[in-house]
Amino acid sequence: MRRIIRVNTRTGEIREFEATPEERRYAGRYYIAKVLVDEVPPTCEPLGRYNKLIISSGYFADTNLSTSGRISIGGKSPLTGGVKESNSGGNAGKKLARIGVKAIILEDIPEREQTRVLYVNADGAKLIDAPHLKGRLVSETFEILRKEFGERKGFICIGPAGEMRLYGAGVALTDDRLEQVRYAARGGLGAVMGSKGIKAIVVDDSKVVEPDYHDPKLLREVVKEVARILLEDPKSQNRRRYGTLDILEMVNRLGFLPTRNFSSGQFEFADNFTGPRVAKLIEERGGCGKNGTPCIPSCTIMCSKVFPDKDGRKLVATLQYESVVLLGPNCGIGDVDEVAELNNLCNEVGVDTIEIGAAIGVAMEAGVIRFGDAQGAKDLLRQIAQGTYLGRIIGNGAAFTGQAFGSRRVPVLKGQAMPAYDPRGLKGNGVLYATSTMGADHTAGNAFETVRTHDPLSREGQVRISRQLQIRAALIDSMGVCLFIRPAFIKNPDLLGALFKGRYGWDLSFKEAKHIGVEVLDLERKFNEMAGVSERFKRMPEFMREEPLPPHNAVFDIPQEELEGIWDIEMDPNVF
Amino acid sequence: MRRIIRVNTRTGEIREFEATPEERRYAGRYYIAKVLVDEVPPTCEPLGRYNKLIISSGYFADTNLSTSGRISIGGKSPLTGGVKESNSGGNAGKKLARIGVKAIILEDIPEREQTRVLYVNADGAKLIDAPHLKGRLVSETFEILRKEFGERKGFICIGPAGEMRLYGAGVALTDDRLEQVRYAARGGLGAVMGSKGIKAIVVDDSKVVEPDYHDPKLLREVVKEVARILLEDPKSQNRRRYGTLDILEMVNRLGFLPTRNFSSGQFEFADNFTGPRVAKLIEERGGCGKNGTPCIPSCTIMCSKVFPDKDGRKLVATLQYESVVLLGPNCGIGDVDEVAELNNLCNEVGVDTIEIGAAIGVAMEAGVIRFGDAQGAKDLLRQIAQGTYLGRIIGNGAAFTGQAFGSRRVPVLKGQAMPAYDPRGLKGNGVLYATSTMGADHTAGNAFETVRTHDPLSREGQVRISRQLQIRAALIDSMGVCLFIRPAFIKNPDLLGALFKGRYGWDLSFKEAKHIGVEVLDLERKFNEMAGVSERFKRMPEFMREEPLPPHNAVFDIPQEELEGIWDIEMDPNVF
Repeated sequence: MRRIIRVNTRTGEIREFEATPEERRYAGRYYIAKVLVDEVPPTCEPLGRYNKLIISSGYFADTNLSTSGRISIGGKSPLTGGVKESNSGGNAGKKLARIGVKAIILEDIPEREQTRVLYVNADGAKLIDAPHLKGRLVSETFEILRKEFGERKGFICIGPAGEMRLYGAGVALTDDRLEQVRYAARGGLGAVMGSKGIKAIVVDDSKVVEPDYHDPKLLREVVKEVARILLEDPKSQNRRRYGTLDILEMVNRLGFLPTRNFSSGQFEFADNFTGPRVAKLIEERGGCGKNGTPCIPSCTIMCSKVFPDKDGRKLVATLQYESVVLLGPNCGIGDVDEVAELNNLCNEVGVDTIEIGAAIGVAMEAGVIRFGDAQGAKDLLRQIAQGTYLGRIIGNGAAFTGQAFGSRRVPVLKGQAMPAYDPRGLKGNGVLYATSTMGADHTAGNAFETVRTHDPLSREGQVRISRQLQIRAALIDSMGVCLFIRPAFIKNPDLLGALFKGRYGWDLSFKEAKHIGVEVLDLERKFNEMAGVSERFKRMPEFMREEPLPPHNAVFDIPQEELEGIWDIEMDPNVF
Repeated sequence: MRRIIRVNTRTGEIREFEATPEERRYAGRYYIAKVLVDEVPPTCEPLGRYNKLIISSGYFADTNLSTSGRISIGGKSPLTGGVKESNSGGNAGKKLARIGVKAIILEDIPEREQTRVLYVNADGAKLIDAPHLKGRLVSETFEILRKEFGERKGFICIGPAGEMRLYGAGVALTDDRLEQVRYAARGGLGAVMGSKGIKAIVVDDSKVVEPDYHDPKLLREVVKEVARILLEDPKSQNRRRYGTLDILEMVNRLGFLPTRNFSSGQFEFADNFTGPRVAKLIEERGGCGKNGTPCIPSCTIMCSKVFPDKDGRKLVATLQYESVVLLGPNCGIGDVDEVAELNNLCNEVGVDTIEIGAAIGVAMEAGVIRFGDAQGAKDLLRQIAQGTYLGRIIGNGAAFTGQAFGSRRVPVLKGQAMPAYDPRGLKGNGVLYATSTMGADHTAGNAFETVRTHDPLSREGQVRISRQLQIRAALIDSMGVCLFIRPAFIKNPDLLGALFKGRYGWDLSFKEAKHIGVEVLDLERKFNEMAGVSERFKRMPEFMREEPLPPHNAVFDIPQEELEGIWDIEMDPNVF
C-alpha cells in the first residue's frame, strides 16, 4: 500500500506517487485529515475546484485482520462545511490494498459536466468517458460495470443524487456478488464525487501487489487472536444473528428512539423492527438464514443480512439500525417491509438513509405528506432520482428541507442530520453531535455502549466519556476496521501495538497507538477551526434544549461551556 | 422619541419603557447593533425564540431634516447568520417618531402559528388577531389595513413570503396614499417578522407627542441649510428627474452591470433601462410627470417615481436601479414593462428584488427557465406566493437556489445575493461585499460614487476607500437619513455636529459625530465574530476570482489578507 494516485478531473491528468515514509505514517481517516489540512483551503467551496475527494484504506487493509479493509472516503463536507470522513464496508477497500494503492485523490472539477469511470489496477489508472452511466441508479450502475469490467471487481459509485450534487448524496460500494450495497453515506461526499464528474471507480485486482509486512508471523498470530476473541464474544454473536438492529429494542425501552421527527423517544410499533423479530422474518422467508454475512471479506463477525420480501426475493442488504430508525419510526412508519423498500430506494438513488430519513421526517411534520405515509415517502425518494423540485429539496437533506418549509424543529448539528439516538435521551451522543469534528454522526464516538454503566439521561461525565469515545473512533477509522472489533483490544490491549509492529515494524506502545486518535482529532479540528465550523458557532438546535422528549421528558441540558471544554480534557491513554 | 415598546410574541405581553439616557445615545442602525450585542445570542436560530426584530427610526426622525425618518429594521439575519439592518422610506418611520416611539422590539415567537397586527399609537400598543390577513399579498394587506384602521396611518407588513419564513422575504412599507411600496428588503428580515407571527404593524399618529428638541432654532436653521444645498446640487436634480436609474447607463458603459447571472458586465438592451429613457416613458404615459415624489415625507430630493403601464395605470413605484438590474439584465430580460411587472410581483409577494432577481438568474442558468423568459420569471414569483416547491426554492434566495440545482456560479457573499454591481468590475464593491458586516449589500458603502476618481478595475486603494464608505454608511443609517444627503455634509461639514446639537444638545465635533460610524461597525463586527460570520470564513465566490468578466475580462483579485486587514485601517476622521 504505497501507491498514491492523483487524478486531476479537469485536465484528465493522472499522476502516481510512491508514498514517502512520512506519508506512510497516515492511513484511512488520519490520511484524509492530513491531506485536507495540507492541501485543501478550509474555506473553499465544497463542490468547487479546491476541494478534494480522498479515498484511503486504513492501516490494515492488506492484512487478514478481522473487519479490516473498510474504506475511508473524505473531503470537505458540503453539509457541515468542515472535515468529513465516511467509511464503509464492501470489497473495494481491500481490493485497493491488494493492488498496493494507499490512496486515490480526486482533484479539481471538470470544466463541463462529465460522466466518467476511473479504472484502477496494479499497473495504473485511467479515466474512461461513460455517458451511458449518466443518471443510472446504483444497482444499474453496478450491473453495467460488472458487464463491462468483469466479475469480482471492486465497484464504487454514486447514484443520480450525487450526479445532481445534492447534499444528501453518499458514495455506494458493493461486494463481489453485488449482493450488498454499502455506503460511505454521510456528509454529502456523493455530491463531492459528483462535482468531479466521476460516476464510478472500478478496482481491478486481477493482478496483485505483494504486501510488505514487516513481520508476517507476528501479524498472523495477532490476526488469529483477534478473530478468536471476536468469535467467543457474546455481543459479536448477537450481531451475527441480529445485525445492528440488535440494539433497537433497548433504545426504545430507554426512550431515545427518534420517532416522528424527534418528537418522541419511543415508537408504538418498535417491536416490528427488533433484531430477533427481523431475524426471524428473514429466516422464515428464506433469506440468508440464521446468521449474517460479512460486509467486508475479512470480517469474522458477519452482522450483515440480506432482507428478502414476502416472496423471498432480496429487498435490501443490509437493514442497518440507523437506516431503519430514520426511515421507520422517525417517519412514523411501522412496517418493516415498507422500511426495507425505502432503504433500498435510498441505496438506488444514492443518498444517506440518515440524512434523507431525517429530511422526510421534517417534510412530514411540515405537512408535505403525513407521518406514516410509506407510499408518499417512497414517492419522495423516486422524486430525488427524477430531480423534481421537491426531490431536490429532500435530496439536499434535513437542514435544507427545514429551510424550504420554514420548520422550527430540524434535528441537525453542523448542518447534518442526527442519527438514530435522540440527544435528549442519550446525552453522550448529544455531546458527540455538538462537539465531533464530523457534526452529528454516531460513528464518530457512539455513547450507546455506555448506557449500562452511565445513566444516559444524566449529564454528569458525558463530555469526558465522549472525548474518550471520539479518540477511539478516530483510531479505529484510521485502522480501517469496524468499531465492533473493540472487544479484542479491550480484552487484550497488547494486540494493538503488536498489529502495528507486525504490519509496519513500528514500536508503538498501547498508549502511543491510542494517541493516533488524538492526533487525528487535532488535525480535523484545525481544519474545522479555519473553516469556521466549530462547537462555538454550530450548536445544538434550540428545540432539543427546550422541548421535553417523551417518555422521560428530558431536554439536552449539558452547558455549552462544558461542551466547548471537551478539547482540554486529558484522557487516560491506557483505556481503549 | 423616548418610548421603547417590547412585544413578547409568545405571551402577548407588551411592555413600554422610557429610554434611559444611555439608550438615547443610540438610534437606527446603531440602536439595532446595540440591542443585538446586548440581548441576542449571536449563535441563536434566526427564526427561533432568541432572535429579535428591532425597529428603530434614526436620530433625526422627528425633525424636518431632508430625507430623515428612514426606518431601520434589524435582527440576526437568516441569510447571513450575522447582524442585519435594513432601512427604508415610507411614512412609518416618521410616524413612529411623531408618537414618541424610539423603538419597537419584537421578542420570542408564538407557540402556534399566528397572524397578528401590532397597533401602536401615542397611548400604547396592542396585538390584534388578524386571521383574515393570512396569506394576503402586500397591496391587499395595505388596503385592508387602511379600511380597518383608517387613512394616513403608517403601515408596515410582510407578504406571503415572510409568513412562510422564506429567507428572501423583506418587510414592506408604504406612504400615506398607499401609492408607493418601499422595502426594508435585505437579509431576510421579513422571515424574522413572519417567525414572530406579526403580519403587520399599524402606526397611528392621529395624536402626537411633542418632540423635545434641544435648540429648535438652531435645528431649523441647519435643516433649512441642508435643504438649500440639496436643492442646488446637480446630482440631486438628476435624481429627481431620473431616479436611481440615473446611473445605469454609466454602469453599463463601465462594464459592471450584472447580466445573465453575472456572466457579463454589459447588457445589449441596457438602453431600455436608462434614467432618461424610463423618465421619458413615464412622462409620455402620464405617470407622475417630470419629477419624482418623495419616498419619505421629509425628502427634498424626491427621486421616487410612479411607473405606469401602457395605459397609464400604476405598475410599480418606484423602479429602483438595483431592482431593475437584478430582475432585468441579470435575468436577460430587456423589456422595461416586464421588469416593472416583475418588480411589482416581488413587492406583492413580499420578497427582496435583489435576492430574488439573483435567485431567478441562478435558476435560469440551471435551465429551470431560459434567460429572457419574462413570463416564466413572473410565474416563479407567483409560485413563491403559492408556496409551491419551486416557489419555496426561489423564495429562499440565490444561495438556496444554487444548492437546489447544484450550481457552481452563485453570486452571494455571506449567504446573501450581490446587488447590481459586479465585484469584478467595481472592485470597491467587491471589498464591500467581502468585508461588510451586512454581507453583499451595496447600501453598506457603495463604491459607485468613486468611479470618477478611482479606476473601478484597479485593486489599489479599494480596501481603504471601502473602509471610509462603510463608516459613513453606518453613520447615515443611524441618523435615519438617505445616503443622498451627503452633498450637504461634504459642502458644509459643520452641519453634522450642529444637527446633533440642535436636536439633542450634544456637543459633537464633526470628527466625533463621524466616529459614530466606527462604533456601529465595531459593535456589528463583535456580534458577527461571535456568530462565526466574518470575512475569514465567508469569502468571495470562487468564480468571481477565476472567471473573467466581459468586456474587461477582469477578475476579483484583491488578496484575502488585504480584505481581512480592513478593520485595522485608520481613517481620516475629517472626511465625510
